[in-house]
Amino acid sequence: MKNKISIITLLTVLFIVFSCKNESDTNSNNTSQTTTEEHPKLILTAQGVKDIRAQLGSIPIFDNTLQKVKEEIDAEIASGIEVPIPKDYSGGYTHSRHKQNWFALQKAGVLYQILDDEKYAKYVKDMLMQYEALYKTLPLHPKTRSYARGKLFWQCLNDSNWLVYVSQAYDCVYNYLTAEERNKLETNLFRPFADHISVDSPQFYQRVHNHSTWGNAAVGMIGLVMDDEELVNRALYGIKDLQLDTKAKDDDGGLLNKDGKAGFLANIEEPFSPDGYYNEGPYYQRYAGYPFLIFAEGLHNVKPDLKIFEYKNGVLLKSINALLNLSDADGDFFPLNDGQKGMSYYNSALVTAVDISYHYGDQAPGLLSIAEKQNEVLLDDSGLAVALGIKNGKTQPFTRKSINLSDGPDGKQGGVGILRNEDLELVFKYAAQGSSHGHYDKLSYSLYENGEEIIQDYGLARFVNIEQKGGGNYLKENKTWAKQTIAHNTVTQNEISHFNGKYEVGSQHHSDLHYFAAEDEGIKIVSAKESNAYPGTEMLRTMVIIKDEDFEKPYLLDIMKITSEKTNQYDFPYYYFGQVLQTNFDYKISQILKPLGSKNGYQHLFVEGSGKAKEDNTKFSWMNNYKFYTLTTATKSNDELMFTRIGANDPEFNLRRDPALLLRRKNAKNTIFVSTIESHGSYSPVSESAQNSKSSITTLKVVLDTDDYTAISITNVNGNTKLFITVNKNASKEASHNLKINDKNYEWSGSYYFK
Amino acid sequence: MKNKISIITLLTVLFIVFSCKNESDTNSNNTSQTTTEEHPKLILTAQGVKDIRAQLGSIPIFDNTLQKVKEEIDAEIASGIEVPIPKDYSGGYTHSRHKQNWFALQKAGVLYQILDDEKYAKYVKDMLMQYEALYKTLPLHPKTRSYARGKLFWQCLNDSNWLVYVSQAYDCVYNYLTAEERNKLETNLFRPFADHISVDSPQFYQRVHNHSTWGNAAVGMIGLVMDDEELVNRALYGIKDLQLDTKAKDDDGGLLNKDGKAGFLANIEEPFSPDGYYNEGPYYQRYAGYPFLIFAEGLHNVKPDLKIFEYKNGVLLKSINALLNLSDADGDFFPLNDGQKGMSYYNSALVTAVDISYHYGDQAPGLLSIAEKQNEVLLDDSGLAVALGIKNGKTQPFTRKSINLSDGPDGKQGGVGILRNEDLELVFKYAAQGSSHGHYDKLSYSLYENGEEIIQDYGLARFVNIEQKGGGNYLKENKTWAKQTIAHNTVTQNEISHFNGKYEVGSQHHSDLHYFAAEDEGIKIVSAKESNAYPGTEMLRTMVIIKDEDFEKPYLLDIMKITSEKTNQYDFPYYYFGQVLQTNFDYKISQILKPLGSKNGYQHLFVEGSGKAKEDNTKFSWMNNYKFYTLTTATKSNDELMFTRIGANDPEFNLRRDPALLLRRKNAKNTIFVSTIESHGSYSPVSESAQNSKSSITTLKVVLDTDDYTAISITNVNGNTKLFITVNKNASKEASHNLKINDKNYEWSGSYYFK
Repeated sequence: MKNKISIITLLTVLFIVFSCKNESDTNSNNTSQTTTEEHPKLILTAQGVKDIRAQLGSIPIFDNTLQKVKEEIDAEIASGIEVPIPKDYSGGYTHSRHKQNWFALQKAGVLYQILDDEKYAKYVKDMLMQYEALYKTLPLHPKTRSYARGKLFWQCLNDSNWLVYVSQAYDCVYNYLTAEERNKLETNLFRPFADHISVDSPQFYQRVHNHSTWGNAAVGMIGLVMDDEELVNRALYGIKDLQLDTKAKDDDGGLLNKDGKAGFLANIEEPFSPDGYYNEGPYYQRYAGYPFLIFAEGLHNVKPDLKIFEYKNGVLLKSINALLNLSDADGDFFPLNDGQKGMSYYNSALVTAVDISYHYGDQAPGLLSIAEKQNEVLLDDSGLAVALGIKNGKTQPFTRKSINLSDGPDGKQGGVGILRNEDLELVFKYAAQGSSHGHYDKLSYSLYENGEEIIQDYGLARFVNIEQKGGGNYLKENKTWAKQTIAHNTVTQNEISHFNGKYEVGSQHHSDLHYFAAEDEGIKIVSAKESNAYPGTEMLRTMVIIKDEDFEKPYLLDIMKITSEKTNQYDFPYYYFGQVLQTNFDYKISQILKPLGSKNGYQHLFVEGSGKAKEDNTKFSWMNNYKFYTLTTATKSNDELMFTRIGANDPEFNLRRDPALLLRRKNAKNTIFVSTIESHGSYSPVSESAQNSKSSITTLKVVLDTDDYTAISITNVNGNTKLFITVNKNASKEASHNLKINDKNYEWSGSYYFK
Repeated sequence: MKNKISIITLLTVLFIVFSCKNESDTNSNNTSQTTTEEHPKLILTAQGVKDIRAQLGSIPIFDNTLQKVKEEIDAEIASGIEVPIPKDYSGGYTHSRHKQNWFALQKAGVLYQILDDEKYAKYVKDMLMQYEALYKTLPLHPKTRSYARGKLFWQCLNDSNWLVYVSQAYDCVYNYLTAEERNKLETNLFRPFADHISVDSPQFYQRVHNHSTWGNAAVGMIGLVMDDEELVNRALYGIKDLQLDTKAKDDDGGLLNKDGKAGFLANIEEPFSPDGYYNEGPYYQRYAGYPFLIFAEGLHNVKPDLKIFEYKNGVLLKSINALLNLSDADGDFFPLNDGQKGMSYYNSALVTAVDISYHYGDQAPGLLSIAEKQNEVLLDDSGLAVALGIKNGKTQPFTRKSINLSDGPDGKQGGVGILRNEDLELVFKYAAQGSSHGHYDKLSYSLYENGEEIIQDYGLARFVNIEQKGGGNYLKENKTWAKQTIAHNTVTQNEISHFNGKYEVGSQHHSDLHYFAAEDEGIKIVSAKESNAYPGTEMLRTMVIIKDEDFEKPYLLDIMKITSEKTNQYDFPYYYFGQVLQTNFDYKISQILKPLGSKNGYQHLFVEGSGKAKEDNTKFSWMNNYKFYTLTTATKSNDELMFTRIGANDPEFNLRRDPALLLRRKNAKNTIFVSTIESHGSYSPVSESAQNSKSSITTLKVVLDTDDYTAISITNVNGNTKLFITVNKNASKEASHNLKINDKNYEWSGSYYFK
């Protein structure tokens, strides 16, 4: 078969030829093989290859993906193999090249299997042999910044990435290689490689952490291909009989191995809640997701008795649903904890996730619409299933709903609540610390409208893989700013971060769900409590999305009730975007800009202006992307308001110059912050007309606030008033309540009253 | 005919019925008419109506526009007529309502003609009668801020807008009304209305200014409909025998009537250059464009002998081509002078412009592609022509080319040069002052890539029609910031704006073209000279877009040569967007931010950091919207660099917090600033990979700089060097040159050498 034949011709031919071709043909190029074992077996399977070949040419999304991969690898082959001596950090040449190679190897292996064209097998073999020759000469990588240095890369993590992909390539060409070739590769490359990232780097391998998941998967996958039970067990259960120092820390300040747990199963057990929420948040779940799922797929194929997809009540597949629900209308993941904005379900790890979830799960038709947007499938059985689903017209829209995701191995360590109504999305975080990538932001939130941020979470302070910015690694402002409480939309007490910004302390605690209610179309509520962030202070935050016919769109009601043993200062920021339109309070701008404080993130905030709040209601409206927004907040006469902007003490311009309005209440003990945020109207720069540019709320009032109940009235411009009462103590659905406010009786049962 | 019949049914019926219907039928609803004159005649014509009716149902873009307009007006009719007593500034209720009414009247008139449904005529009549009843009671508008107060609106300008539209409505229902009704309207509404905005407001009417153009068109259009020769002459030639104080100023600081010229023809004569460039810039051309073209269309129809579209060598149609070329890849106009960003060819005035240009011009097929994007046509003869052109498959892409547009009535007052290559667009302004909306920014530029700003022009400081921001009018920061030289990408000498920011002085001068060369695919050049902005200082700026095969994309070379009689400080800002990636110079950030100066715009710039330039080449790279950019500039060892941000002394947050890098050279007399700006590579937040994130230029060198020649060498990372020589004196295409640099002879003829 000629290399230059177009893929379409090829597919047609394959469709005709392979429908009835015996699978033993796939081994026909190699006569010296001695093993009788069937390969491929890991991700591609012999039967899968047969099925794929039978459908080729008639499954557009699969055919197109194959065509793209073929073009990419043909170009790689044409440009020649390069296996440089390791030298650089991420973003540098040798790093990028070895990364490019791992993808090329994996893809070439798949092409060999599906297209049965020997040139791809030869390419894999030749490159593997160059790696074999190089690897046996390699000392530790010359860059020293990692707590666990790799050999090909500056950190074991990337070495593991390499092996996860290359195992698949090896499996695809296994039968193409002679026994001698295999022996050479396994002895000089794969086994020492697996050992380096595991037994030689236990501080990396022997943990519950996304790094270790990659390590486990790498060791396990090469073990499955090599049929090496010892490696597979090391992958599943960790390094036998090894206990690490439970106090040691990694580069990010995370504890290396607090509980002594290790291995792939522990890595499933620990970080995923029963709802499938991953404790580090969606950005790292996406990153960790690939090894979880691809190794699981391999285990499913090679060790079906393990029933890996049913492990912990099927949590791996549940986690994909959770992850997809942690994305906004554009498919971008909410940047909880360390998360880089813009990461989305278009990432290739999510192609894996969506296809595996569809194939090994319950063939949810909504997944097909995401696959269509991704415009790409895995070139394996699961990708085939998706391609056939789409071809057969099974696609339905993927609908995101209001959802509450518990955190913690047992689902008892708080969680993340997402409220959705029409285009408005609220993400409320009341989770546990979130491992070393966690931020100190108990009861914080961000607010989205149709994929746009209204009130932002900053995300991380890092430019991933952009070498010019600190080698593409975490910047020091990630710790001094992004992780600090003041960087988030929650309360900072006395200018100190939650848990005093101490990881060890934060890791021992979590917030607790008070109640979640999303059944009613008109009102969605999540309420949670935090008692440990500031000892002696308890915070109960109830966030509500209300759809009221008197309003153009749903709006947010936010009730933060604080009870403290002592008098404190509370800072409550609103990280809006865009330009100030109007305030109902007086303020003075700063002639010169000074930082708001000297530590805990405050050193990064310039104060652009400050004023005193209005008695009763303070209003602030702004415009962003040609839409209008208004904050209405119930304030006291000595509350202060500050216009801040990020960027102070930022010697390398690592931070974005984003604004906030900061509400400060001094000398308060027990107190309550109640606000609404409305999105309303729009502006057209083309017609130069402003629609509905003003708030619809005239009065926001705390009509009652006791230990047991908080009642808020909201009066709109039409003069209609709604009353919302939240139950602060026994919020069970069954409990009945009877409450007198201003001589009027209110009776209801359940967590809240709204009328 | 029933009102509720769907438009599609209606169109089909009309298509069948009216193809052979006698036009006298259009008058069938009115038996009391006494005039024999044919109406409509102004924009719609009796013959045009006939042609349109014949095509209805078979011209999709026209049919769809008609359907939308019908839905809009049916909704207006259903919600009832409201003619409130005038009270508010722009953005307020009564302003918006009267504006809504003028559109509704015009559209309802057109619907009556095209659909022959009496309900539309009745709606127009009823509303006109309410205006008649109101208008005769009205004093001046209660808001006092305008130099020329209207009656329906706070300024005569908006009253004129009203009359331009309502004249069309009146024309459409003219024959539907009785002579008595017409007499009532003309006596109590239209004639006093026309008088108020003209003879009673000469300071508004009797000028060369976009305001007056609206006034002239309003008076002329109602005059054409009423067949009132006096009004038509007043429109064409101004108020007879009236001379105004030539020193008086308007609200914006513009001179009211410097030359004593007035009337529609003078308003064509003066502001348009022979190339069709409008002296205030594209934003105001768009605004003024509608009355120019719609009145011209009326004149063409009613007074064909005037040959208005041939006036001044067909400048009205040329101006449309110029305007379309003054838009970026997205159709957004370059915000030269006072221009609000986001205004684009999607504005309804441009629907008028494109359709009229197509119909009365040479049926350029590129215009059809814009009409398709606008997805709307005029409901008249010109819209019909466009709809038929599209229907008949004549559409071709609209291609923007490098173009030089002269400024001034005779094309001798400088101009605007636009260089384009692939996705890169440079807009270079060397024009005259640009009337009262002009900025003090001689030889300034902005740079675009595929519709995105790389180096921005700030535009205006105003939120048009957003009442919360200064009533939607010009903000004081427009004068203190947006108009100042330092707000632009050009040189400020000694922290003083060009012409000392004095309008009277600036209005007397203009820059001069040195040469423009855009024939060569690989190099596009515009070069211009400014001798009056700073007496005793001459600036010659040569801007070049080079496409070199060693580079991923075209890049900008910028040579600013300054010759001065004395020693000065020169400030040279780069208004980039996004985040700092890397510099090759050391800088210190400011612990507290102070304004850079106290006046001339400097009071609005905070200094975020400062450093010393590198000897030879200073490099600065940044990232915006996931693309990389690098500035390389040939600097001297004592040049200073400052990171600035707009926003100081901005008490109501009227300014955007945009950054700049500012290059400052002190104690220099004759000097030269040479820079390149490259756009390169991209970053994907989904794959987290950075492509081509570094500059391709290693050395930028001034190898020669004399009175006669400036020679620049550019060496790239491949080690290849290109030499660009610009001729500073006799730059004619014919002149031949012979120059020795470093013992090597260069011979060429023409304005420049490049190899």
